Amino acid sequence: MNGGQALIRTLVDSGVDVCFANPGTSEMHFVAALDDVPEMRGVLALFEGVATGAADGYARVAGKPAATLLHLGPGLGNGLANLHNARRGHTPMVNIVGDHATYHKRYDAPLESDIAGLAETFSSWYRCSLRAEDVADDAAQAVAAAYGPPGGIATLVLPADVSWSESTTGPAAARHRQGAPLVPAADIAEVAKVLRSGEPTTVLLGGKALDARGLLAAARIAAGTGARLLGETFPANLERGAGLPALDRLGYLAEFAQAQLEGVRHLVTVDALSPVSFFAYPGRPSDLVPAGCTVHVLATGRADVSAALEALAEEVAADEEPALAQALRPERPTGELTMATFGAAVGATLPEGAIVVDESNTAGLFVAGATAGAPRHNWLTLTGGAIGYGMPSATGAAVAAPDRPVVSLEADGSAMYTFQALWTQARERLDVTTVLLSNRSYAILNLELGRVGAGAGGPAAQRMLSLADPTIDFVALASGLGVEARRATSAEELVAALEWAYAEHGPHLIEAVLPEGLG
Amino acid sequence: MNGGQALIRTLVDSGVDVCFANPGTSEMHFVAALDDVPEMRGVLALFEGVATGAADGYARVAGKPAATLLHLGPGLGNGLANLHNARRGHTPMVNIVGDHATYHKRYDAPLESDIAGLAETFSSWYRCSLRAEDVADDAAQAVAAAYGPPGGIATLVLPADVSWSESTTGPAAARHRQGAPLVPAADIAEVAKVLRSGEPTTVLLGGKALDARGLLAAARIAAGTGARLLGETFPANLERGAGLPALDRLGYLAEFAQAQLEGVRHLVTVDALSPVSFFAYPGRPSDLVPAGCTVHVLATGRADVSAALEALAEEVAADEEPALAQALRPERPTGELTMATFGAAVGATLPEGAIVVDESNTAGLFVAGATAGAPRHNWLTLTGGAIGYGMPSATGAAVAAPDRPVVSLEADGSAMYTFQALWTQARERLDVTTVLLSNRSYAILNLELGRVGAGAGGPAAQRMLSLADPTIDFVALASGLGVEARRATSAEELVAALEWAYAEHGPHLIEAVLPEGLG
Repeated sequence: MNGGQALIRTLVDSGVDVCFANPGTSEMHFVAALDDVPEMRGVLALFEGVATGAADGYARVAGKPAATLLHLGPGLGNGLANLHNARRGHTPMVNIVGDHATYHKRYDAPLESDIAGLAETFSSWYRCSLRAEDVADDAAQAVAAAYGPPGGIATLVLPADVSWSESTTGPAAARHRQGAPLVPAADIAEVAKVLRSGEPTTVLLGGKALDARGLLAAARIAAGTGARLLGETFPANLERGAGLPALDRLGYLAEFAQAQLEGVRHLVTVDALSPVSFFAYPGRPSDLVPAGCTVHVLATGRADVSAALEALAEEVAADEEPALAQALRPERPTGELTMATFGAAVGATLPEGAIVVDESNTAGLFVAGATAGAPRHNWLTLTGGAIGYGMPSATGAAVAAPDRPVVSLEADGSAMYTFQALWTQARERLDVTTVLLSNRSYAILNLELGRVGAGAGGPAAQRMLSLADPTIDFVALASGLGVEARRATSAEELVAALEWAYAEHGPHLIEAVLPEGLG
Repeated sequence: MNGGQALIRTLVDSGVDVCFANPGTSEMHFVAALDDVPEMRGVLALFEGVATGAADGYARVAGKPAATLLHLGPGLGNGLANLHNARRGHTPMVNIVGDHATYHKRYDAPLESDIAGLAETFSSWYRCSLRAEDVADDAAQAVAAAYGPPGGIATLVLPADVSWSESTTGPAAARHRQGAPLVPAADIAEVAKVLRSGEPTTVLLGGKALDARGLLAAARIAAGTGARLLGETFPANLERGAGLPALDRLGYLAEFAQAQLEGVRHLVTVDALSPVSFFAYPGRPSDLVPAGCTVHVLATGRADVSAALEALAEEVAADEEPALAQALRPERPTGELTMATFGAAVGATLPEGAIVVDESNTAGLFVAGATAGAPRHNWLTLTGGAIGYGMPSATGAAVAAPDRPVVSLEADGSAMYTFQALWTQARERLDVTTVLLSNRSYAILNLELGRVGAGAGGPAAQRMLSLADPTIDFVALASGLGVEARRATSAEELVAALEWAYAEHGPHLIEAVLPEGLG
């Protein structure tokens, strides 16, 4: 058994059985070993940002890490933006980076670069395996580190000779912690006291607090104490829909978030960061906690968040029932395609059990409201702000849940970062419906240009924000990558296209053409 | 004048007047300032790897740096692979990275990451401007650092508040060194002695030695001493064609390079690294210098390389005439599309003064030979081994030389890393002909799988190297991005398509369909 085989066998024995890969020469023994360990599913990506984003989406849905396989420093570089998003979302991931043979490093061949320097910027665990007999144990530790809690990215560098040399030790298996430590009773009692104070209190839920179990407990707390619930702005995976507590999210725009938090005296965070502005704006605060408001931490992602919420609910709302969203869909919309009719079309047709990956940016503002009473579903968002996450993440989500429909809400600007994901969706016959909102604009930047005080922008600035010249034909792009596609220019056409895409297993793309700049 | 305006004005006053940009909110004041300094040309890219690759291609052709504009750490990450290639090619570049406002950094907003950690892996100069009044001087220093010699990447981080705050100092101008220092006469005399020794000697030319001036001097040296000339495997910019000395390049495959160097007793490097294997292979050497061969360095990129070659030529070959390539084109090929007929088609039609950007990998092996006697042209290759450089680099080359035809030889696998470059070509009406060799395969990896000793690979491994499922329709992809495209399935069709593309200004793409896996 060589190092590559020992690595893959260890990953599989540790429960990591999907690898999103974009390999090169230095990874050839790892690739060859895929035939020796058939339990490992290799999923090829045309670009590394697709591989890392897919691993993020996979883990959010599967609840366990996938592996990636990347080619030296430049391959890692191409994967960095979605590694950033995964880091910010505490996604567990085992990031395998092939490297030159150990003895070849000193020759400074063209692909030589500082892999450790790159990896340290996003990894919660990093190691380079220097001997074949160490690979299995290193990989087992990587898996354990990826699980956390909180989850994180473990980066293991695999030199080519370590991969091809015989390993004398055989595979290992990760001994990762089962479950996270409980929040101390005294901390829960302290938050309970705050909730009983009668002062205006908001509970900000994030991370692991956003699954059904956490949400149901939080809704009981709200019912029993009058506290208001808010979700973090960009959740990694929010369970929602009819039969679950409805949850407003903190606004992306600082002024909107400030309005939501106005008058709050106590802010209780549950696996969420204290709210700050996404960007800085001249003359506006970065810290969004209102003056006179105290922040209390019930639990971070290092603890058992759901258990903490349930213990708190028992203490302050033992006999309360949570308020639940009613089943309620918008009517099938007709007429012009606007943000409102777009949202209604998605809400009217969303399939039961859907996984929605939302990178629709400005264009998608209405979709969350229009789907609040839709059949139960999951909602994945951009945790780190690095656009180009949506289509890869939807790809990984579909690999993790092959029996569930995945809906990828995408904007034209962000789509063009990692559009190559469609090819992997076609290759793997993944059930992903991409709804692409085309407004021929970086619409959010038009908004931000004014908000940062730079005015409306002259013609040179405006040209940097427009995608109108040339117009991108997303139907052609999708077809070119093997994905069936249709264009919708009215609400009726969008509804019909969504029903067409949902009716047939496999990837589809719908280009929803909005008026230019709308969003 | 705010910091953003002072920065752009300083760049323009220092000769840097093109900026390849993919901006976000933190760069909005820089973008707005483009209207205040109209001499700066902003070129929008849909993806950061296009921006950095374009800046690389631009500088190789223009002989001076372009700026990039990237959005925080993730934007920099997306640009990293082509920054790696630029670093390895000693390309001068001014890399501007927008960041959060200085006072906002401590709030750990979602896009916060370790920009300095990333930048240190590829930058020859790095600074973060912390006050608006420092920006101009910092930018001037960045430009000077980018020039070198040798050229390199200067990364300047521009926090949002530094960009929007008033600068009290106004713009600055770079005082970069004009010309590089001369190689000491003693060093030239020592190499002259080697060349007169009568022992088998090869002169390995790279970097700045590959322009017409360097090549003509080197060819005189060869004529006068019997030394053999070789070019480095992957030149940044090689001048070639009829009327210039023909130059064989060192082979990519180590065994081929070893055969080329067999029996050599003296290897004289001129702005080239001592030859090493691109990758390590079990049981094969990394160092390709034969046993018993001494390496002599005539000049590195820190010195005036052309002057050194001319001084050496005066010393050892004062009265010699260089051997020059005759004007000679292949016949227009007919019949099946093979690597040979592909090369002949390019050679038969290559326009005068073309800039060829070669990322055709395995498929392009025959093109260099078929164009050796074509009209004079430049040949740009992948200096750092990170694929996805070709189409962006061709884009930048066309911005640098709007009156010259650019020919972008691309392979299907590498094309899919930065295909978004076509949109910028269409937007800027750039005269780029992309010839896309489609063999539905990472053909080079099929070759490497065997060479590293991993055998032929089982079905799982083979599936990681095949691009056949689904087949990528490059005509559809190009059309979707606003570039006219045709497919060629025979040699006649390829010749006709090339003539069609060359006849009309603006971007075109030709998908040359080779048999599967051929290359």
